[in-house]
Amino acid sequence: MESISPTGARERFRAGLKTPTAACAPGYAQANLVVLPRDCAFDFMLFAQRNPKACPVLDVTEPGTPVTCLAPGADLRTDLPAYRIWEHGDPVAETADITEYWSDDLVAFLIGCSFTFERALMAAGVPVRHIEQDCNVPMFVTTSQCRAAGRFKGPLVVSMRPIPADRVVTAVQVTARYPAVHGAPVHVGSPATLGIADLSKPDFGAPVTCADGDVPVFWACGVTPQMALANARPPIAITHLPGHMLVTDMPDEAYAV
Amino acid sequence: MESISPTGARERFRAGLKTPTAACAPGYAQANLVVLPRDCAFDFMLFAQRNPKACPVLDVTEPGTPVTCLAPGADLRTDLPAYRIWEHGDPVAETADITEYWSDDLVAFLIGCSFTFERALMAAGVPVRHIEQDCNVPMFVTTSQCRAAGRFKGPLVVSMRPIPADRVVTAVQVTARYPAVHGAPVHVGSPATLGIADLSKPDFGAPVTCADGDVPVFWACGVTPQMALANARPPIAITHLPGHMLVTDMPDEAYAV
Repeated sequence: MESISPTGARERFRAGLKTPTAACAPGYAQANLVVLPRDCAFDFMLFAQRNPKACPVLDVTEPGTPVTCLAPGADLRTDLPAYRIWEHGDPVAETADITEYWSDDLVAFLIGCSFTFERALMAAGVPVRHIEQDCNVPMFVTTSQCRAAGRFKGPLVVSMRPIPADRVVTAVQVTARYPAVHGAPVHVGSPATLGIADLSKPDFGAPVTCADGDVPVFWACGVTPQMALANARPPIAITHLPGHMLVTDMPDEAYAV
Repeated sequence: MESISPTGARERFRAGLKTPTAACAPGYAQANLVVLPRDCAFDFMLFAQRNPKACPVLDVTEPGTPVTCLAPGADLRTDLPAYRIWEHGDPVAETADITEYWSDDLVAFLIGCSFTFERALMAAGVPVRHIEQDCNVPMFVTTSQCRAAGRFKGPLVVSMRPIPADRVVTAVQVTARYPAVHGAPVHVGSPATLGIADLSKPDFGAPVTCADGDVPVFWACGVTPQMALANARPPIAITHLPGHMLVTDMPDEAYAV
């Protein structure tokens, strides 16, 4: 999909276009979506508060109201390209429109996404290997447990980006400026410390090829709250389909500190 | 009170000492306390999420469990020097021990406090006038409204610190490093923009004397959630008594980004 405005992108998704949002509306933050019944919302919010690197909350809607300050004019029920429906912790359907699932009882969470810091890394001259290699970022389930909140619990999931050794400091500095989109790395250098046995076998995403002299750097990943959601087994939940995010009206720089 | 360890300070408060905590355990973060019934907790947390400069949440306890990761070993019912009890939005009592008010239904929020950034300002050579003048910081109710969440709503309350004009940039840089304790100023220079008519008449705290060349700089203030609490009128709420905070085991630097 060519680069267009956030509003233009959302209009096309509302009209039915289904495409990953990675290259869409560069310079504008994208957000992960998690929709839950109101009676789970406090525990999920607590989980996010306790695990802010994995689950940075950008906005929370009023119960029953599918609008967000991140994208005024957007309808969260129709304006993402694709959604996943979950029942009791299991994915049961994919759809382009969640209007039929919506109710006054639902609360939507918008969660920061690493696209913002990846653009900042590239702008700072730090190569992002999975983008160079046109594959999905590799993600790993670690042996580190999140702080639980009620029924929401589970392991920390990390994404891995190989960074040239002489750019690791810059990569830390650049991403630390964006705490709302996962922020600084959680670990540099030793996969074993996180319980990762083999970097060539990610749990999600695709393996990425390291260049000579690259160091593996690990960031908290938005799959973490999805695993906590599966563990909590709420009667219904709705998320974006991986890669098919909300394109917001917020400039990336709005999230720099 | 002389400078002692966080644990030593909390032991004295548990034993009955009532004293403001400002000079206590320098280098360790202090936290505001807000205790609410579980059924208000989601709305309050949402209010905090939507107004993070005024209401930076450091930790939230499990319902009924008066312990926090900020101070392992502390009992939140006894280890602050003094508490205020609220009923239906009105303060009704002060006490040194909230054990008799505690129930399995209560959730405690620990909220960042400006002491951390004031110490950072002084360390950076920026004078903090109300500390020099040994008075409370002046606070003002602004005409700027917070983003509401359910029953929690109200104006932004700000604290004002006069800063020498040639140190304003440093003051912004230093406090911006501490988003968990109110962070960067919300405004520099023009009280009228915030609806403040007279800097010599604060709504809370004490007036402070500006030196020649000082510029008024305004930060979001922890009284903001207390006003929202009064507006929400929950059947019961418990807060710290102003100035009588939780002394945590967290080094100030743990909150620097």
